[in-house]
Amino acid sequence: MTTPTVQFALDRLPVPAHLLDQDAHDPLAHKRQEFMLPGGVIYLDGNSLGALSRRVTERLTRVTTQEWGQALIGSWTAGAAQGQDWMGLPDRVAAKLARLIGAHPDEVAVGDSTSVNTFKALAAALATAHPGRRVILTDQDNFPTDLYVAQGLIGLLGERYELRRVPADDVAAHLNSEVAAVLLTQVDYRTGRCLDLAAVSAAAHAAGALTVWDLAHSAGAFPVELNAAGADFAVGCGYKYLNGGPGAPAFLFAARRHHAAPVALSGWMGHADPFEMARDFQPAPGARRFVTGTPMVLSLSALDAALDVFEDVDLQALRTKSLALTDTFIALLDPVSERLGLTLVTPRDQARRGSQVSYRHPDARAVMAELIAAGIVGDFRTPDILRFGFTPLYHSFADVSRAAQGVQAVLEAYA
Amino acid sequence: MTTPTVQFALDRLPVPAHLLDQDAHDPLAHKRQEFMLPGGVIYLDGNSLGALSRRVTERLTRVTTQEWGQALIGSWTAGAAQGQDWMGLPDRVAAKLARLIGAHPDEVAVGDSTSVNTFKALAAALATAHPGRRVILTDQDNFPTDLYVAQGLIGLLGERYELRRVPADDVAAHLNSEVAAVLLTQVDYRTGRCLDLAAVSAAAHAAGALTVWDLAHSAGAFPVELNAAGADFAVGCGYKYLNGGPGAPAFLFAARRHHAAPVALSGWMGHADPFEMARDFQPAPGARRFVTGTPMVLSLSALDAALDVFEDVDLQALRTKSLALTDTFIALLDPVSERLGLTLVTPRDQARRGSQVSYRHPDARAVMAELIAAGIVGDFRTPDILRFGFTPLYHSFADVSRAAQGVQAVLEAYA
Repeated sequence: MTTPTVQFALDRLPVPAHLLDQDAHDPLAHKRQEFMLPGGVIYLDGNSLGALSRRVTERLTRVTTQEWGQALIGSWTAGAAQGQDWMGLPDRVAAKLARLIGAHPDEVAVGDSTSVNTFKALAAALATAHPGRRVILTDQDNFPTDLYVAQGLIGLLGERYELRRVPADDVAAHLNSEVAAVLLTQVDYRTGRCLDLAAVSAAAHAAGALTVWDLAHSAGAFPVELNAAGADFAVGCGYKYLNGGPGAPAFLFAARRHHAAPVALSGWMGHADPFEMARDFQPAPGARRFVTGTPMVLSLSALDAALDVFEDVDLQALRTKSLALTDTFIALLDPVSERLGLTLVTPRDQARRGSQVSYRHPDARAVMAELIAAGIVGDFRTPDILRFGFTPLYHSFADVSRAAQGVQAVLEAYA
Repeated sequence: MTTPTVQFALDRLPVPAHLLDQDAHDPLAHKRQEFMLPGGVIYLDGNSLGALSRRVTERLTRVTTQEWGQALIGSWTAGAAQGQDWMGLPDRVAAKLARLIGAHPDEVAVGDSTSVNTFKALAAALATAHPGRRVILTDQDNFPTDLYVAQGLIGLLGERYELRRVPADDVAAHLNSEVAAVLLTQVDYRTGRCLDLAAVSAAAHAAGALTVWDLAHSAGAFPVELNAAGADFAVGCGYKYLNGGPGAPAFLFAARRHHAAPVALSGWMGHADPFEMARDFQPAPGARRFVTGTPMVLSLSALDAALDVFEDVDLQALRTKSLALTDTFIALLDPVSERLGLTLVTPRDQARRGSQVSYRHPDARAVMAELIAAGIVGDFRTPDILRFGFTPLYHSFADVSRAAQGVQAVLEAYA
């Protein structure tokens, strides 16, 4: 446990009038009350684990004590007409997700981890790509599990494929007739750099390659327009900006034109009629075929309830507020960052920024431990990144102001 | 909704003295109070979805409101020394499972669905088998998802492999130099027929093949001795006899001699150092390498708590009671089964029986609907199976007596 060098009551730090005014006019301000945030803390790590909403606790109590405890096996099918059956749960969650990522409901499959979905999507992409193409092109700084999954799949396929790793900004330059699929995370988990979905997808298509997008730091952070961008496949995470709970089920997107792709992880819940108990796999219509085993109902119900928080949220308003939050944080630290050893690595260009702000600092690991001890919960990412995630649903401009003051105070004491 | 043709208060049906006496001397009788069973129902479907235990509701409340809601991201690592960190949760659950299946803790990986684990185990087995062997030998009546997973894997591997489906009792006769792996479910989900793990494994090994066992209806139902049987790989289900909740995480067993097998679904949680964020997959020691993505903490915590119910349970006593329960049910229905159109399909031989009793009946689907309406919750399995699962942890001999009386009453009225 780090003993804080700086101790202060975060919620008593003064906030400039113009930021209080922004809070007063924030169209999303009312959403904060739906979350159960811990006291004495400014939680800037919702891009690692989103916060708990009240709807989730209520739903988990109901699904556990009533649906499981009392109705037991009947809950798999009971209430199907009212959209309450567990069998239909993956599809209902898929429909809620579809709006957030610019997809049709039948293009989304929900369940399993992001890693497992990446395997499914990449396998489908390789099977769909021109058979002569043997390269998976990726960002050398992609989130590690994406790289590991690609390595595992290549190992399984007998080394016929190559994982080619290049800097994200050089991907376009490396597109050629060898490339079967481009595997990219839209928002870099360390820097917060956001790629242009449409531009990269168009470049990939122009070169005859398919796209597999990892939306881990995109979905729920800002509107994603998969179909408008011409994306082929995508995966995403349920426990970051979607607030679905630790290790929440992830999702897979497959554009309608790819629904005939082979299903590598073919399980009974992706079968056209699971309880027919047929001996041969007959895929369900649409992306449901990419659902594999029995849904993890407890975790999936939490995600389902968490998504209801987005129901009345205008996604453009979400993006507008997100950019205002990150702009404000950057502006507040700009005057002192050089003196405090902070180097901004998140793009200042709004179009290239996700919903986080990251700085390099030579002692980032120790500094983040100090910050957390002082109640400002961000994240350290190896080797030297201080990462602060901003969540428009539950952060205020007052939070941003106090967090910036706290960062400054800790670094002044630390320097 | 089926209108019951027979209505009775199940808990007022008389029970013969010798069965009440068995309950009075049942060393596992005290376990029943740990479960929250619905009233007015005899639940004989724990082999489809196990019942809710009090520990699970308490644990879910704590993990949701405190660990997630208050401690948030800190819960991934906090309390590691006391065995409370989420990062260590898969390994702690693996250790609890190991005792139930006759394995070492480092031979068990927990997470994902049974289907996904079957994919992992089968891929590892094929990669480990002699490269000239191209046949996966299986039971033609295996649980469908096992067949589908094998089909998907074969499709991915480019049709170099063949799924050969034969009657379960003929597997030994089909073992030859073409067989790479034998994929079998120990207890048939319809008939309750239990295969001899050791004998089949020995026959497979003698023929140079590896074994992949599906323990869906074994784990938690009776002691499984994987290492004593020489098993190579196995998978199992968390939501049947283990009572982990709907869609609970499943598990994978890999014998120590196979820990160098390639990991097909290689994700960051199977990496030797996940937060090092290395660019290449370096497998964790032991079976942990087969864990793929971020654990679904809510569902996994429920399973963890459910397994604590087994902590003081003698597994031989569990088996003894299980056989006594199924013996009793069969004996009570024997005198009337022919007249009522019931044909026992579960082996009378105890060594070949799991923890369920199944009958064929020409109108099984309609009959089961009637039974459920009358409060006797078993399962219909296509095409004509009435299935009754017995769970030694929460069933009494009085339950068995009343269930048999109920089945008789419904069928008398139905016939």
